[in-house]
Amino acid sequence: MTLSPTPRSTVRRNSRRARTDRAELYALLDEALICHLGVLIDGAPVVLPTGYGRIDDVLYLHGSVAARSLAAAAELPVSVAVTLVDGVVYARSSFHCSMNYRSSVLHGAARRVTDPDEVLRGLAALTDHLAPGTWAHARTPTRKEIAATTVLALDLAEASVKMRSGPPADDAEDVEAGTAWAGVLPVRTVWGAPEPCPLLPDETPVPPHVLDRVR
Amino acid sequence: MTLSPTPRSTVRRNSRRARTDRAELYALLDEALICHLGVLIDGAPVVLPTGYGRIDDVLYLHGSVAARSLAAAAELPVSVAVTLVDGVVYARSSFHCSMNYRSSVLHGAARRVTDPDEVLRGLAALTDHLAPGTWAHARTPTRKEIAATTVLALDLAEASVKMRSGPPADDAEDVEAGTAWAGVLPVRTVWGAPEPCPLLPDETPVPPHVLDRVR
Repeated sequence: MTLSPTPRSTVRRNSRRARTDRAELYALLDEALICHLGVLIDGAPVVLPTGYGRIDDVLYLHGSVAARSLAAAAELPVSVAVTLVDGVVYARSSFHCSMNYRSSVLHGAARRVTDPDEVLRGLAALTDHLAPGTWAHARTPTRKEIAATTVLALDLAEASVKMRSGPPADDAEDVEAGTAWAGVLPVRTVWGAPEPCPLLPDETPVPPHVLDRVR
Repeated sequence: MTLSPTPRSTVRRNSRRARTDRAELYALLDEALICHLGVLIDGAPVVLPTGYGRIDDVLYLHGSVAARSLAAAAELPVSVAVTLVDGVVYARSSFHCSMNYRSSVLHGAARRVTDPDEVLRGLAALTDHLAPGTWAHARTPTRKEIAATTVLALDLAEASVKMRSGPPADDAEDVEAGTAWAGVLPVRTVWGAPEPCPLLPDETPVPPHVLDRVR
């Protein structure tokens, strides 16, 4: 299935970097840990980092019912960006220095989820995106905890995906001049060894759903 | 020097996570590679990942003069978020699952830089933030390249810094119940080995400004 660009989600700059396969959007959203949510507060844009979860073509966001940003997002236009940096591109000219990355920008009106079953499904998706396996392993939310949480849903209808990879794209004259080094310094996100909570009994084994992520 | 919070930049949620030392803002901005810029386009917020540079209390952004997002940012209110994820916090309850992070959200009106000297200083800051040492090493921009670039400046006047670190903050009953593992899975961003451009002559040495970053 392909992404159907609207005027807003059409990649204009460096359009050769645009991707239109929905599978690439899913892969990016599933790999990244956080998104940046843009909302309008008092007429000005506000950008906030936050977690998310995905079920099929719906992105779930959540926050405290007391959070101004979540209130500002419900039923109003929002934008969500998800970005992975893969490398720094050292070019022969400053002008062509760049980054290798995969990014997606989503647009739409976020719907406040009120159906109790969907609230739970959304929270499960959020939890297991952040910490896979945790929804089944940890204590599920109480009624009070759920009441304190706003869950929003954003349809992945209007989305752009953009990627850059590979070596620098230098001007031919700069390649010929050969006065500067050029190449890519890869950037990778890696997991460290699990740090058990100090309140755990000694020798508590690290469960498979945590260990599997590190391996 | 401290950050002077305005109503907009006052951390409301989990305010114990707020930091008010300007040095922590600088450290975060200097360590992160990209920011997420929020602008208003046709009445809706749009969030875009982009590079930046910092000189003292000014953040510089740039883009093609043809970019809609940069045009939408000049002289208008914008928001910029810079976020580093340090770990995933596995709690004994889904409700307390969290992230360890350092983040800053900036607000203000971005000024279009027109003074030619400041344009160059801004571009140098942007280049050397992305790829330290490159402004001196690579070819500097031509007049044509500069004319094709919009440089924006955002004063770091209105900024919040928020951080979370350490183990999960579980409810006492969940700690006592002891039915779930809890701890932190650290997240680290690391550099890979330099990948020289295929167009470089064989055996071209990797220069110190690149090697120093990897070490």
